[in-house]
Amino acid sequence: MAQKPNIPKGTRDFGPIEMARRNYIFSTIRSVFALYGFQQIETPSMELMSTLMGKYGEEGDKLLFRIQNSGEKAAEAPEKGLRYDLTVPFARYIVQHREEIQFPFKRYQIQPVWRADRPQKGRYREFYQCDVDVIGTDSLVSELELIQIVEEVYRRLGIRVCLHLNNRKILAGIAEVIGAPDKIIDITVAIDKLDKIGIENVNKELAERGLTDEAIAKLQPILALEGSNAQKLETIGEILSENEVGTKGVEETRTILELAQDLTLPIELDLTLARGLNYYTGAIFEVKALDVAIGSITGGGRYDNLTGIFGLPNVSGVGISFGADRIYDVLTELNLYPASMLESTQVLFAAFGDAELRYALGWAKTLREQGLRVEVYPEPAKMKKQMGYADAKQIPFVAIVGGNEMESNTVMLKNMLTGEQQQLTLDQLCKTLQSNLTK
Amino acid sequence: MAQKPNIPKGTRDFGPIEMARRNYIFSTIRSVFALYGFQQIETPSMELMSTLMGKYGEEGDKLLFRIQNSGEKAAEAPEKGLRYDLTVPFARYIVQHREEIQFPFKRYQIQPVWRADRPQKGRYREFYQCDVDVIGTDSLVSELELIQIVEEVYRRLGIRVCLHLNNRKILAGIAEVIGAPDKIIDITVAIDKLDKIGIENVNKELAERGLTDEAIAKLQPILALEGSNAQKLETIGEILSENEVGTKGVEETRTILELAQDLTLPIELDLTLARGLNYYTGAIFEVKALDVAIGSITGGGRYDNLTGIFGLPNVSGVGISFGADRIYDVLTELNLYPASMLESTQVLFAAFGDAELRYALGWAKTLREQGLRVEVYPEPAKMKKQMGYADAKQIPFVAIVGGNEMESNTVMLKNMLTGEQQQLTLDQLCKTLQSNLTK
Repeated sequence: MAQKPNIPKGTRDFGPIEMARRNYIFSTIRSVFALYGFQQIETPSMELMSTLMGKYGEEGDKLLFRIQNSGEKAAEAPEKGLRYDLTVPFARYIVQHREEIQFPFKRYQIQPVWRADRPQKGRYREFYQCDVDVIGTDSLVSELELIQIVEEVYRRLGIRVCLHLNNRKILAGIAEVIGAPDKIIDITVAIDKLDKIGIENVNKELAERGLTDEAIAKLQPILALEGSNAQKLETIGEILSENEVGTKGVEETRTILELAQDLTLPIELDLTLARGLNYYTGAIFEVKALDVAIGSITGGGRYDNLTGIFGLPNVSGVGISFGADRIYDVLTELNLYPASMLESTQVLFAAFGDAELRYALGWAKTLREQGLRVEVYPEPAKMKKQMGYADAKQIPFVAIVGGNEMESNTVMLKNMLTGEQQQLTLDQLCKTLQSNLTK
Repeated sequence: MAQKPNIPKGTRDFGPIEMARRNYIFSTIRSVFALYGFQQIETPSMELMSTLMGKYGEEGDKLLFRIQNSGEKAAEAPEKGLRYDLTVPFARYIVQHREEIQFPFKRYQIQPVWRADRPQKGRYREFYQCDVDVIGTDSLVSELELIQIVEEVYRRLGIRVCLHLNNRKILAGIAEVIGAPDKIIDITVAIDKLDKIGIENVNKELAERGLTDEAIAKLQPILALEGSNAQKLETIGEILSENEVGTKGVEETRTILELAQDLTLPIELDLTLARGLNYYTGAIFEVKALDVAIGSITGGGRYDNLTGIFGLPNVSGVGISFGADRIYDVLTELNLYPASMLESTQVLFAAFGDAELRYALGWAKTLREQGLRVEVYPEPAKMKKQMGYADAKQIPFVAIVGGNEMESNTVMLKNMLTGEQQQLTLDQLCKTLQSNLTK
């Protein structure tokens, strides 16, 4: 036999179990989005290279997959590439369709993206993103809704999480106040290392990164921040009281925390959060699972100029992205998938002969009309083989049909877990299956 | 402002309404698949070119989209291309994963495919396929199940259809019996033209296509076929009685029709069906909508050697493919989308000021806990603007909150269809929404 076929590096096949789990995650998320009036869109897998190029930095440009049309001469057709994320296509969508869109536009999008990254554990060249955004309003109610969505999605999935909250304006204010407006990233990196390397080493590193002694001195109260969110915000507010953008950031954060005060979701003000800093202009979010060390499983923020790159300036939006692959890993590690999730077959009919098989087909039809998920083993194979099939597919009941059953207009129902057998009429079978099965 | 951005030729954006409709189609199909124990898989968008090339004929090879990895040297990486259909990746999947798969394997797959066809009305370069197959058994029970699935899917969608049935073995038998075994295609094409050009012209064309006078004479009873499926099958059976493969085809068809005799779906024996003839080895299906002239909306057949191309011979399977784009067009033309399909917002809160907005947020939270789909307009904008938003999104109710409502702990609920207004407490609002809304 020839060599086994394979798939490109960094891509995956999803088998039945993996798909059932992924569908469970996506359908949970979608049903929460729907509660808040978000609507789904889809954009093409390929975009014009002119849409993609220059949007992800120099490194990003190198990670774009280009598409070549075999039949077409290169000169005839504009260059195309595979979608690298859902954000740039969404920005393109808004500008292209702005006359049809009702703003504020609440959209979500669940589609694969492609990156020519070096494949490694947990990093794929094709993976799904799941983005939800409100665009066309700068109201902080949108931030609240996204936080509520985070709470409800993870409550339904059973994952304990903490939401880390930051604000780009606070970081900008701090950098301005200490006289180092171009050092935002260095400052957040330093704060992030506090726990690991201690204050002295952090200060040393800041000096190496070019901060003046004066700037480092001014930064000390920020590095020493302690207490509740309110206490931290109070301290930051004092430090930034003379700084316009910083004060705005403190106010925004205070409002968001106040709007979210009834939630049970833990929220932590976290100045180390520097995610997408060249991009976000207000709130920044990151969600971490409490019981698995896997990094951020959801993140996002407020942006004021998403569509500017396509010539439509001053459209503010806020959005978050759920990391499906990581959520998958968390649920697997914590063994949190519900049994009912599989939507798998509830009963398999196993027939001893051709006449029995015909008989089973009639019963199966009736059960399906009741909404039951039913399989009929398609051949009168050896009973052991048919049972093996039920075992492998984890089908909980097998309805065995032999000559006796046909004569008495019954089936012999075997519970595959307990081994228990019962001779049942069609009516009894219906009732047994309806009552015994979770879903 | 810059020129509007655009998308590559032959691709599409799907907005909220289109997505809701597409989701309705796919979820209807999926729920029927689940009743029969079919499980979903997904394969990567890109396959190795060695997997794709030579599988779709010379023309097909030209329509493959190749993928170029910007960062990687061409020599380092094997060539990749976008999936052209779901069949070849499925065959590759079976061979690659055959040790994990439980046969008979009942799988479905709903994913986009890409073809570098010249774009034209109704033909896209990216479109979804929706394939369902049973592989690893040659039992005709599988043909029956696919026919049952066709019946149930179109019953649920409300589309009246007819299923056309043919069998490759019958066609092969006819060609052998008339002494022209290599002329199967010419014969089916000729039969297909009978209604349009009449028997004399058909015979003339057959002669031009190289059939001998004797062959044409022997074909006359086939061209004159009339009556019910059973009568036609009787005639064909007589003509093919001495031919082994033809007789096998007649028997298969008779069994399928007999298994399906209780169905309400009209089934028509149709010898002109030549779909995928270089590929199918047994039954051939095609489903046509009765009330819209749009061609086949579902089709498929039995194949005996799908996985042979990847070195695993003698695995028989049967499958059909639902044409999502055409089903979409049929439902649109016949106006068959149910109102409840949209899963859209059930009530919008419209607040006169900031305090009212906060008040509305609390109410919205409670309603969502009851499973209601609720939006809060995120700003205390002009009431006209908020009402316009509800109109545009076809939200049926607006809960207006002003000072009076806050004082009396109520909202003013406006029915957007009738214009009727009612002052309601939270409890009354819940009950009104629950009882008034279809879903």
